[in-house]
Amino acid sequence: MPDQSLIRNLKEGDAFQGFLLAQEAAYKVSAKGSEYLELKLSDASGDLKAFLWDIRAIEGDMDAIHADVFLRVKGSVTSYNGRLQMKLDKARFAADAEVGDFSAFFPVSARPVLEMLAEMDGLIDSVRDPWIQGLLRALFVENGDLRAAFALAPAAKSMHHAYLGGLLEHTLSILGMAERACAHYRGLNRDLVVAGVFLHDVGKTAELSYQRSFGYTDAGNLLGHIALESEWISRAVGKIPGFPEELRMQILHIVLSHHGRLEFGSPVLPKTPEALLVHYLDDLDGKLEVMFRAIRDEAESGSWSSYNRALDRMVYRTRWPETDSTSESVQK
Amino acid sequence: MPDQSLIRNLKEGDAFQGFLLAQEAAYKVSAKGSEYLELKLSDASGDLKAFLWDIRAIEGDMDAIHADVFLRVKGSVTSYNGRLQMKLDKARFAADAEVGDFSAFFPVSARPVLEMLAEMDGLIDSVRDPWIQGLLRALFVENGDLRAAFALAPAAKSMHHAYLGGLLEHTLSILGMAERACAHYRGLNRDLVVAGVFLHDVGKTAELSYQRSFGYTDAGNLLGHIALESEWISRAVGKIPGFPEELRMQILHIVLSHHGRLEFGSPVLPKTPEALLVHYLDDLDGKLEVMFRAIRDEAESGSWSSYNRALDRMVYRTRWPETDSTSESVQK
Amino acid sequence: MPDQSLIRNLKEGDAFQGFLLAQEAAYKVSAKGSEYLELKLSDASGDLKAFLWDIRAIEGDMDAIHADVFLRVKGSVTSYNGRLQMKLDKARFAADAEVGDFSAFFPVSARPVLEMLAEMDGLIDSVRDPWIQGLLRALFVENGDLRAAFALAPAAKSMHHAYLGGLLEHTLSILGMAERACAHYRGLNRDLVVAGVFLHDVGKTAELSYQRSFGYTDAGNLLGHIALESEWISRAVGKIPGFPEELRMQILHIVLSHHGRLEFGSPVLPKTPEALLVHYLDDLDGKLEVMFRAIRDEAESGSWSSYNRALDRMVYRTRWPETDSTSESVQK
Amino acid sequence: MPDQSLIRNLKEGDAFQGFLLAQEAAYKVSAKGSEYLELKLSDASGDLKAFLWDIRAIEGDMDAIHADVFLRVKGSVTSYNGRLQMKLDKARFAADAEVGDFSAFFPVSARPVLEMLAEMDGLIDSVRDPWIQGLLRALFVENGDLRAAFALAPAAKSMHHAYLGGLLEHTLSILGMAERACAHYRGLNRDLVVAGVFLHDVGKTAELSYQRSFGYTDAGNLLGHIALESEWISRAVGKIPGFPEELRMQILHIVLSHHGRLEFGSPVLPKTPEALLVHYLDDLDGKLEVMFRAIRDEAESGSWSSYNRALDRMVYRTRWPETDSTSESVQK
Amino acid sequence: MPDQSLIRNLKEGDAFQGFLLAQEAAYKVSAKGSEYLELKLSDASGDLKAFLWDIRAIEGDMDAIHADVFLRVKGSVTSYNGRLQMKLDKARFAADAEVGDFSAFFPVSARPVLEMLAEMDGLIDSVRDPWIQGLLRALFVENGDLRAAFALAPAAKSMHHAYLGGLLEHTLSILGMAERACAHYRGLNRDLVVAGVFLHDVGKTAELSYQRSFGYTDAGNLLGHIALESEWISRAVGKIPGFPEELRMQILHIVLSHHGRLEFGSPVLPKTPEALLVHYLDDLDGKLEVMFRAIRDEAESGSWSSYNRALDRMVYRTRWPETDSTSESVQK
Amino acid sequence: MPDQSLIRNLKEGDAFQGFLLAQEAAYKVSAKGSEYLELKLSDASGDLKAFLWDIRAIEGDMDAIHADVFLRVKGSVTSYNGRLQMKLDKARFAADAEVGDFSAFFPVSARPVLEMLAEMDGLIDSVRDPWIQGLLRALFVENGDLRAAFALAPAAKSMHHAYLGGLLEHTLSILGMAERACAHYRGLNRDLVVAGVFLHDVGKTAELSYQRSFGYTDAGNLLGHIALESEWISRAVGKIPGFPEELRMQILHIVLSHHGRLEFGSPVLPKTPEALLVHYLDDLDGKLEVMFRAIRDEAESGSWSSYNRALDRMVYRTRWPETDSTSESVQK
Repeated sequence: MPDQSLIRNLKEGDAFQGFLLAQEAAYKVSAKGSEYLELKLSDASGDLKAFLWDIRAIEGDMDAIHADVFLRVKGSVTSYNGRLQMKLDKARFAADAEVGDFSAFFPVSARPVLEMLAEMDGLIDSVRDPWIQGLLRALFVENGDLRAAFALAPAAKSMHHAYLGGLLEHTLSILGMAERACAHYRGLNRDLVVAGVFLHDVGKTAELSYQRSFGYTDAGNLLGHIALESEWISRAVGKIPGFPEELRMQILHIVLSHHGRLEFGSPVLPKTPEALLVHYLDDLDGKLEVMFRAIRDEAESGSWSSYNRALDRMVYRTRWPETDSTSESVQK
Repeated sequence: MPDQSLIRNLKEGDAFQGFLLAQEAAYKVSAKGSEYLELKLSDASGDLKAFLWDIRAIEGDMDAIHADVFLRVKGSVTSYNGRLQMKLDKARFAADAEVGDFSAFFPVSARPVLEMLAEMDGLIDSVRDPWIQGLLRALFVENGDLRAAFALAPAAKSMHHAYLGGLLEHTLSILGMAERACAHYRGLNRDLVVAGVFLHDVGKTAELSYQRSFGYTDAGNLLGHIALESEWISRAVGKIPGFPEELRMQILHIVLSHHGRLEFGSPVLPKTPEALLVHYLDDLDGKLEVMFRAIRDEAESGSWSSYNRALDRMVYRTRWPETDSTSESVQK
Repeated sequence: MPDQSLIRNLKEGDAFQGFLLAQEAAYKVSAKGSEYLELKLSDASGDLKAFLWDIRAIEGDMDAIHADVFLRVKGSVTSYNGRLQMKLDKARFAADAEVGDFSAFFPVSARPVLEMLAEMDGLIDSVRDPWIQGLLRALFVENGDLRAAFALAPAAKSMHHAYLGGLLEHTLSILGMAERACAHYRGLNRDLVVAGVFLHDVGKTAELSYQRSFGYTDAGNLLGHIALESEWISRAVGKIPGFPEELRMQILHIVLSHHGRLEFGSPVLPKTPEALLVHYLDDLDGKLEVMFRAIRDEAESGSWSSYNRALDRMVYRTRWPETDSTSESVQK
Repeated sequence: MPDQSLIRNLKEGDAFQGFLLAQEAAYKVSAKGSEYLELKLSDASGDLKAFLWDIRAIEGDMDAIHADVFLRVKGSVTSYNGRLQMKLDKARFAADAEVGDFSAFFPVSARPVLEMLAEMDGLIDSVRDPWIQGLLRALFVENGDLRAAFALAPAAKSMHHAYLGGLLEHTLSILGMAERACAHYRGLNRDLVVAGVFLHDVGKTAELSYQRSFGYTDAGNLLGHIALESEWISRAVGKIPGFPEELRMQILHIVLSHHGRLEFGSPVLPKTPEALLVHYLDDLDGKLEVMFRAIRDEAESGSWSSYNRALDRMVYRTRWPETDSTSESVQK
Repeated sequence: MPDQSLIRNLKEGDAFQGFLLAQEAAYKVSAKGSEYLELKLSDASGDLKAFLWDIRAIEGDMDAIHADVFLRVKGSVTSYNGRLQMKLDKARFAADAEVGDFSAFFPVSARPVLEMLAEMDGLIDSVRDPWIQGLLRALFVENGDLRAAFALAPAAKSMHHAYLGGLLEHTLSILGMAERACAHYRGLNRDLVVAGVFLHDVGKTAELSYQRSFGYTDAGNLLGHIALESEWISRAVGKIPGFPEELRMQILHIVLSHHGRLEFGSPVLPKTPEALLVHYLDDLDGKLEVMFRAIRDEAESGSWSSYNRALDRMVYRTRWPETDSTSESVQK
Repeated sequence: MPDQSLIRNLKEGDAFQGFLLAQEAAYKVSAKGSEYLELKLSDASGDLKAFLWDIRAIEGDMDAIHADVFLRVKGSVTSYNGRLQMKLDKARFAADAEVGDFSAFFPVSARPVLEMLAEMDGLIDSVRDPWIQGLLRALFVENGDLRAAFALAPAAKSMHHAYLGGLLEHTLSILGMAERACAHYRGLNRDLVVAGVFLHDVGKTAELSYQRSFGYTDAGNLLGHIALESEWISRAVGKIPGFPEELRMQILHIVLSHHGRLEFGSPVLPKTPEALLVHYLDDLDGKLEVMFRAIRDEAESGSWSSYNRALDRMVYRTRWPETDSTSESVQK
């Protein structure tokens, strides 16, 4: 993204010129019969409504303007009923190539990618079981494409950690808890748990599309991430001569069972302590992220979040002890 | 099995000598304090109760006698309260090697294996899509071990087609119906349907153990047949250069979704007409087999079968028009 | 419908005069405070939006104009944002009697009614069991009102085959598959299956209202089609002296159980092979029709249909092998 | 039953001669190899175990002795571990004709049948709506077979009111509550409610077999009591010229919906106040009967009943205020 | 509410001046770009749409105008498409203190509060068990705050009896039915039932907020009314020396179990006859109220109500016998 | 328990004299008609079958001998079919008072009680929030009865930690994990979590009876442990002047919601991060205990445990890496 203002920093009266992502776009007709263009435009810092009242001001193909494309716009910031919006003087479709770095237009993990990759590498190095370490190195260190995708993908389309880098951040958070759980429940095989956490969602790099808006790929809809990653694991294991079949089975079992219940898409229930643990910590981490985000959400006010679909409930946002700045104190 | 009488052919007063499989075995004590051995012995033709009243007549290790082993027994057939049973004079544990051909001791498909294999080969030859034919040939013709296992395995532990050869018989029966369905619903891709039916349960050859009594293998319990066969398909596809990714996905989708609902162990729902069809025909074939068996069952009498766990209901056994010999007229 | 253009054939700039069905109708007020009339108008070939900006141009009673009535309109076709719409100069309520043949205004089966009735009669003639043939003749041949309604009704309000003639088309399609299934599973009583298929949904002729928009009748909502058709069967049977009670029970059982599960409105589960088969083939036929329609739907593009409520999933529209004209090759 | 002692009145040392119903019968073999006959024998007052140690004392066909037949026995009452049992000297199969009045051998309502029939007739007379009164008279007064069966049948096989006369007793109890409910909720149509209660379970007279042990008939298993009684109502209505269709629908709706939920076998949900009321009062009456019986049950002791399958819970038997004789104070 | 017209009594052309509650409030922009204020305004007698086309006519803080506050408005009644609406000349925020008696702005029970309180007191006096009477007096007579809240609260946010006084009306209606049920099922302890009914929903006075629009309090969302009232009961019992522990348990059991099923929020199932009865009568009373209201609803026409979320079905509004004035004949 | 051998240490041929708990007791009759007494006797170290062949050797009241009482027995250890059993020469009922220390007869936590209590006290001391510390001290330090019960009770009747001291051990284990989770998810209020864990199951001290065999108390069955502990918390809070209402609500919310789902008996869902965490860690800890116990269980052999009702599955007992002594390496 070239030099342009962030949406979050705009004030009434500002002029704006630059690229923005169209999240919604619709031609509407006023009661007088004149057409206008109503948009919701976003960059990674936020979004606002925008209107172009004279559609003759659109440059190029009108039909190229729809949801999920970039626009080049020029206009000024106005205020309506207490909310900022943008009155456009010009708008045109912009090809992806013009726009450059996409990540400036999408929500992204608060943790720097390089820091997360370094933490990941350190965890792989810490694995003492040579077979497990070999498998993790093959997938996350030596396979450059997968490593890159693993660092970029979100953890879900919308349920939790739905931002670029979210999959890696979610994985590392579970690994942190898993490390602690293995110190507590000493009967657990720590390396097996680490393998299970690393691999449990890696198929999401192919299940989800996240180059632009988040969605499901064909493979994601037809096969699901559990089937995808199961295949990758088996293929990677197949290239490691002598990899023990028992270990392969135990790892695959964790991956296949990590949704915890058949009706959530796991074809088998967790039947080993390691599989049970990975299921619980994965579920807990996703739900806590959702709760803390609802508590921190500055767009909400009052004791209760709005209804949260991922949790099927509202979240109680009042913290004990009640502090001034809830946004500071929550989650690492 | 060497030359010995079939259980089904025994009559009161017959002497018997030979190998039988112990389905149940328990040492009991009479009220007088004397021990005796109570057995349920079987061959492929049936089973009966047997008693050895003087345990000193046991040769060799008493503790080697338990469920699921073969015994060498000698005794005579008596009748008690209208049922035949066997009074044993001698009994000893018999190693598998002594027994020879196991299949004489297990329920087996009524269709000859060679006939079924020939039908299978004909169906594979009839596939016009070269990729699909290549995949099926690789798994069911060229892979001798899998071909042999596919001809031997039951279709389930106990729910339906639970006998040796049952998996192949069940597969061929669905294929027959699938052929007819493709002639009826002409929008269906017949070759894709054939592939889906052939592959939908092939993982049961590794999910189930059926060398002796029927059960689940470790891999069966930990991974399930859907995950097993998905891996095999991907591996076989990987050895066919140029195999179209779209086709691989469509085939895997049929396999992954064929249980029809998440809570039945399919991680995805059927989302193509071919996947939907395979699910319905598989389910229908299994349930019809159970119903017809309940209707034919000579051990039952009256209008109603006993409660059938696979169907979660009783089956109405009266046929319309009411005929003398229900056992003849049912199922091909 | 007198001589007027089909909606599907209209082009921008065309003048239009004729009857159209109002699917939606609402008086709205513009920001300036002037009222206008916004409509969605349809004939059997399609629908489009229409606007009447000056409500003084409405002839007759304004309040008579609402959803589900016919209108007589005059106007011209305009184009807005790539979609055709109609700008009305005049509009008035039109009584049903004026309109004439309703079927010109509703979606209708692609199969000619007479062809379907002939196929139906042939099937009834093919029944060898005299009692069953007698029952089917009484209901579908000799009862002229029921025969007419059976040829006209849709198979459902919106789930599948939701068009005039859909009930008959759906019934014949299941009968085609049932014929094939009886050739495959030879233990089935083919005549009993034929009776079950013919009768399983015949109550929909009274459960649904389909003279205009599709909905439920009072009897449909209070009793449901299963209770309705059960009564009709019993009444028809009552007029056939000597009809065997056993057969009456077996037929009623198929009808009562054909939804397959209690929670889907069947008071009993299928307990005979014939009842089981009818349930599966009915369910399969309805769902395949929905899938093929979603695949053929020209209003959609891309690999995936929009979310389909009848199937509770999206449908994968890409066919293997990928062809140019999917719309030709699907379903007979 | 001719002149013979009631089981409930037997004491240790008594001689006994007479007919008893065999609820269970099995030939067993002792550890010494001798056969004996073990029985559970009952009359309407109770049951006890019985043994015949020498099977040569059986007169007639040994195989005729099995569960659900009458036996003619001679023996003496002994006591074993605090419980009475019977040591038999003789036993033989007894044909039904010999036995005479069956009702002496089955549990029976505590309310006299004639009293209940009189109450029923009074209620029918109290109906002011002539159509409803006509329908009820046709079924319960003029149809002698149905009247007799309605007075004899149990209300369920085992869940509640499972004794002869139980259906009528249950129906009258609901009617009593319904009368009171209609006085309270004055918007209810009392006559419609009365019709619904009378008819809601009348099909049980054909769903259940209760001539001997309680079970389901073929029609009961294949169609269910709701379908049976719906047919009877329609048939009876058909014989009343001019019976209003609206009323027929409202009555049938109550009957069809009275199980309250689809998964409990009602094809439609209650959609009128009268249907809702009948569902609740029916359900409540059945469950209260089960609870009060569990509280009164003299075979139990302690605060808690054993697990009750009809309620899927244990019942708390302690009453407030705690009295000496719980058996007196409960239920009318 | 000072002297002002009721919404129900307004006619086209009337001038209006007074306080109204804003149920909805939104600033909108017309296609011409001018802002206007769209409102839904209500008093206890009804609601209507209102528009203020020139927002400069708003007095005071524009942002103070939002849903759930009172407004002081001046305008005139117009008619649009057959419905009355209000064209405002002036509007301003009004503080609660100005408005005076809130109850004039909310739906309220048709029964006078004093009459209901008198009935309640009579019922408490009729309790013969001194412990139970003492407990009820402590909560509903001696605790003035609770008595006042109990007389004011609705029975639910929106499901049934959702109006001021609804909780007391609902409670008294159940008590009426309970009285009749205890006369019918004589094994029931009437005083225990009375206690259970009185207490089963009393926690709703703290679970719900109903000073303005109806909603849940923090305690309501975090603890629920069952936990709230359980605590109050225990606290009140704690202040009555010698209160029998057995009785306390039986009362708490009724309260805890009155939702009847765990998934409806009862931590235990009803295990006494009294608990079972209270559950059924509570459920029945709420659902009947909803049904009768749907039948009486003058805003609806036709045989069927619109879909009712509380019942998850539509209600059949046609009454038998069909009368002219359904609104008169229903519910006491 | 006075000086007597532990059951686990008995060998064939040993004489035995002492007290044992009768887990099962039945008078049986042999085929010869002689009565004998069959028992299952236990102490904390194990159980074995016992027989008294001559019931005249019973001293005192025969009827006093039944399940759940102590017996004084004298006999010798024999071996039958590889298992030890006891042949009794004498037996008599023994009053509890004779037996002395009950805990010698029940399974007990492997962790010493004093050590656990010290750990508990340390954790309470570590709480920095004075209100929370005060509440925990009031219940677990100052209330001697509750402290004693909390140290003695099992965590469940049979599902997990079903042994004396199990509740405290389970609580401390969750606290250990909770401590680690709060270090990881820094937005959590650690003191609130500690309170929630301490209190979540404390009501089990009154829900369960564990003086003898484990069962439910009347209060347990009628109210459940969640209602019991909610009341205790409110009562304890009531004695701490100034305790903040917000904090009371947050603590009660954790307790009420800790079963995580309504159908598992929580009347509300977890709506705060702390409540969510306590639910997950509680559930995980119980299930892991069950899994590790199944893996360690010396009575089992092979890769798979028998079906485990608490988990509704079998547990895979093979550990990776496969070690000789699984029983050593598991769980702290």
